[in-house]
Amino acid sequence: MTEALTIWTYDWVPGGKSGPRGHVRDIRLRWACEEADLVYQVKSVPFENRGPEHFARQPFGQVPFLTDGDITLFESGACLLHLAKKSEKLMPRDARGEAEVLEWTIAGLNSMELVTVSWWFVSLSEGADNPLKDWMLQRLKHLNTVLSEREWLAAGRFTVADLLMADVLRVPKLRATNPYPVLEAYIERVCARPAFKRAFDDQMAHFALGDA
Amino acid sequence: MTEALTIWTYDWVPGGKSGPRGHVRDIRLRWACEEADLVYQVKSVPFENRGPEHFARQPFGQVPFLTDGDITLFESGACLLHLAKKSEKLMPRDARGEAEVLEWTIAGLNSMELVTVSWWFVSLSEGADNPLKDWMLQRLKHLNTVLSEREWLAAGRFTVADLLMADVLRVPKLRATNPYPVLEAYIERVCARPAFKRAFDDQMAHFALGDA
Repeated sequence: MTEALTIWTYDWVPGGKSGPRGHVRDIRLRWACEEADLVYQVKSVPFENRGPEHFARQPFGQVPFLTDGDITLFESGACLLHLAKKSEKLMPRDARGEAEVLEWTIAGLNSMELVTVSWWFVSLSEGADNPLKDWMLQRLKHLNTVLSEREWLAAGRFTVADLLMADVLRVPKLRATNPYPVLEAYIERVCARPAFKRAFDDQMAHFALGDA
Repeated sequence: MTEALTIWTYDWVPGGKSGPRGHVRDIRLRWACEEADLVYQVKSVPFENRGPEHFARQPFGQVPFLTDGDITLFESGACLLHLAKKSEKLMPRDARGEAEVLEWTIAGLNSMELVTVSWWFVSLSEGADNPLKDWMLQRLKHLNTVLSEREWLAAGRFTVADLLMADVLRVPKLRATNPYPVLEAYIERVCARPAFKRAFDDQMAHFALGDA
């Protein structure tokens, strides 16, 4: 019998308008497992008072991390690439398709999220004078050029690279600032997938349990 | 006969104190090839007037990108993970070792560089009031905890994860702000490798040629 994959996340996070519910990065792993029909369970670590056992598995004190038999992995991007090896639904098996998924997954993490998350963070304190705004808009512009010519980022079909990129782009403040209808349509298209809906609803229900 | 790998970088970048020479990310690929004794050549695209052929291979108009037979890959992190599959010197072949290299390479890109590059970028305009400074120092603190207990990030020995992390950390302004001697010693240790020295010298010579 195959042991189930375990996705680890917090037991609770703040809700409401400014809370991260629906955006905690365990959603990326839930979504990937749902897409690929991988058997998984979700377990929790305390959001408050993160202890040494947490840091031993996630050195920056964040979530998610993933247990797969005797392997534990942190970093949502690393977990996604690990899961992608388990299912052709997430990543094709030919060398060129695999390379495209790899480059676009890393582009989501290091060319887009690097700028968009920092821009978002600075926007909390700096408002309109955000020194990262032009850089962020330039990255969106280049991505807009790519997605004006094709529906999916890699290998001519949905892959884990789209899952990651859409999750990076769907942050409400970013979405409200994005001037490109093509990118908005891309977010809509990727997030219309039933696997995203299940992952989203499950995360919301998980954190609501912690409200008790 | 195996066709040589081709690393693509700019024909020239500004030198001097504020120029990026020695830090253009083709150095990561050069360094990995030098570590693993992979045969490679370096080719150039114009730094000024980046044309459609450039964007076709690197959609954000940056460098490096890598040609490996009929595969072209962009994103230095993706290229490193691609090269790591070619040599055990860069990444062990057992599942656990591979997972450790993967998570730490992604951590370098998405937990460290995400914050350090944004902090650096904002520091150019904001000086001491950088709203990203606390976040950046917190990430260094967590990494310091990890590297206080071991010499290398993954698999108990030098891997491509150290190559990436050291390259992220060795940015002069970051190094001058880093309060942790353990991290400084780590940068020294990783960058003392002869393969780094060769990659660094070759990049400096490459851009100096473009000065003519």
